[in-house]
Amino acid sequence: MAQNFGFTLIATDGAARLAEITTAHGTVRTPAFMPIGTQATVKGVHPAAVRATGADIILGNTYHLMLRPGAERIAALGGLHSFMNWPYPILTDSGGFQVMSLSELRKLDESGVTFRSHIDGAMVGLSPERAIEIQNLLGSDIVMQLDECLKLPAAPGEIERAMRLSLRWAERCKRAFEGAAPGRALFGIVQGGDDLPLRAESARGLIDMGFPGYAIGGLAVGEPQEVMLRIVDEVAPVLPADKPRYLMGVGTPEDLLEAVTRGIDMFDCVLPTRNGRHGLAFTRRGTVNLRNARHTDDPRPLDEESSYETTRTYSRAYLHHLVRANEMLGAMLLSEINLAYYQELMAGMRASIREGRLAAFNAATREMWERGDIPPR
Amino acid sequence: MAQNFGFTLIATDGAARLAEITTAHGTVRTPAFMPIGTQATVKGVHPAAVRATGADIILGNTYHLMLRPGAERIAALGGLHSFMNWPYPILTDSGGFQVMSLSELRKLDESGVTFRSHIDGAMVGLSPERAIEIQNLLGSDIVMQLDECLKLPAAPGEIERAMRLSLRWAERCKRAFEGAAPGRALFGIVQGGDDLPLRAESARGLIDMGFPGYAIGGLAVGEPQEVMLRIVDEVAPVLPADKPRYLMGVGTPEDLLEAVTRGIDMFDCVLPTRNGRHGLAFTRRGTVNLRNARHTDDPRPLDEESSYETTRTYSRAYLHHLVRANEMLGAMLLSEINLAYYQELMAGMRASIREGRLAAFNAATREMWERGDIPPR
Repeated sequence: MAQNFGFTLIATDGAARLAEITTAHGTVRTPAFMPIGTQATVKGVHPAAVRATGADIILGNTYHLMLRPGAERIAALGGLHSFMNWPYPILTDSGGFQVMSLSELRKLDESGVTFRSHIDGAMVGLSPERAIEIQNLLGSDIVMQLDECLKLPAAPGEIERAMRLSLRWAERCKRAFEGAAPGRALFGIVQGGDDLPLRAESARGLIDMGFPGYAIGGLAVGEPQEVMLRIVDEVAPVLPADKPRYLMGVGTPEDLLEAVTRGIDMFDCVLPTRNGRHGLAFTRRGTVNLRNARHTDDPRPLDEESSYETTRTYSRAYLHHLVRANEMLGAMLLSEINLAYYQELMAGMRASIREGRLAAFNAATREMWERGDIPPR
Repeated sequence: MAQNFGFTLIATDGAARLAEITTAHGTVRTPAFMPIGTQATVKGVHPAAVRATGADIILGNTYHLMLRPGAERIAALGGLHSFMNWPYPILTDSGGFQVMSLSELRKLDESGVTFRSHIDGAMVGLSPERAIEIQNLLGSDIVMQLDECLKLPAAPGEIERAMRLSLRWAERCKRAFEGAAPGRALFGIVQGGDDLPLRAESARGLIDMGFPGYAIGGLAVGEPQEVMLRIVDEVAPVLPADKPRYLMGVGTPEDLLEAVTRGIDMFDCVLPTRNGRHGLAFTRRGTVNLRNARHTDDPRPLDEESSYETTRTYSRAYLHHLVRANEMLGAMLLSEINLAYYQELMAGMRASIREGRLAAFNAATREMWERGDIPPR
């Protein structure tokens, strides 16, 4: 029988938490990093390899999937898990963020948004109820409410208006999600831009409604890290201790250390795969640009101490060659290597929280980053 | 201890042969199809997946590798097998074909060719001796002589001149290859364009020199299939029965059936990977264009009877989506699927030759191709 949705706290270390989320499609160890499978594929990586890097859960994008191939189509084909051959947990966003960033926004009012598809120019509507319907059709394990995301900086009045609209939409999403299977869950999203009182009000409003998980949205949109962390500092302690907390769209490896320390449980970000496609690797010794000529003759792997075989196997010289020659395999291997590094970092944080030594782990991790990449022989 | 190079005939069925080639890096079951790893990577496919499709041997391109990253560099990094993480047999061509097709040819004379690199415009020289030196540096198991490849049609005098030059270069390559490790071998290349007497003369000249294997070159350059087969009909019977025969740059699945029937043992071609990158699949039911709208809602795999898991796993609807969305995974999966089909075809021919029923296998294979793709449900 399918597992009910649940969140089990295992250990804490300061504000940081080690926990497990159970879903109908399996368990997610938190703190968790979710690779992004925008168009029903984690770009350039086989689903089996995504799993092998250590991912328990991936993220799908409602905006992209509703436009192509379409939510009803994916449902008729057996749902997103089956469609993309990923039988493990999936979280889908609500489409709100991409409507803001990718489409030509036509009209936003109380009922929802109408926008022009960036693919074929068709006019498409998205309401709170439709966002839930789409995610139900996809069969997501974790469903996100529709919210209005603003670009920062924004006028205070705008931030307040969008936050209150997102609260009303949260309520409508909650009603629309009623009756969903017990292995699935709907998360509310805290909005309020960089305005701390508005953020607190948004969090309280959502908590009053009661969700099985809470996200902090509207960040990682270009603001300085300190602004993001100030908001996490304000919001995370307010959120219920017995529910997962998801910081949307974050971030760099350093962002992850900082946010886990502040009590965040879940993350998603395009950086590992996007940077991989551009020849950049994330490693224990910081970021490494494989395009750099110093790798040309270097027979050593990116990190011979990595837990991931691909990272230990291919030489820097070979990766450099693939990147310079614009070969697909370069993007493929570096995307895998970067996802594996992110997962290794999360696994390290999880082990450290269990043993009450997260601060020491973070300090040692930073020290290795600051040492920089291993020098040429 | 490393295996000596050898060719063991196991069974024949008419002119068709079942055999094994042994090399320092392992055994090649023939008839064999060699995926092409031009720039030290089979485009879009992990080396482990290339192996999983059933490939015993791959082809590397001397022309590309000498220009980038360079043969001396690959040698210093431990050779091509180690560089690209392919510990199995490798055949390298001599560069002659690409000099003709890719570079701006500057000068060809008795000593060799001087050409302008298509990558950085540098002037580069390639002589018979240098072609062997490069392939030795790469560490190829099967090394090809330098030859002059002409575009067809060509003037008869030109074909004769190029054929005789290639024969003299074969002699020089043979001398340059003397002393190579016993697990490696140099193949001569029969030239002579579409002129049958010149082809016969070229074959006799090479046989008189004595090579451990013979290729038929200068085909698959745009000539009709019947021209190619007429040359194979003429040349294959002349070649020693106890040595492998390699038809360079061929071909379509149908070309493979025809040429194996005529006694060819080895093939290479870019079609499976190139067509895969363009959304075309090779299947038991002929070629299938995944871009076609009829796949949009089709939950069935490309071929549920395929021996290759990937071919049985992903739906046509998903592959169609990936191709339409221009996702890397579409090219990756279809390249694998096509390589697996080519290997399945070769395995089918090998099993049939062993049992003396190649003609029946070929007829059944053609009948399935002619039936065409399975209709939509």
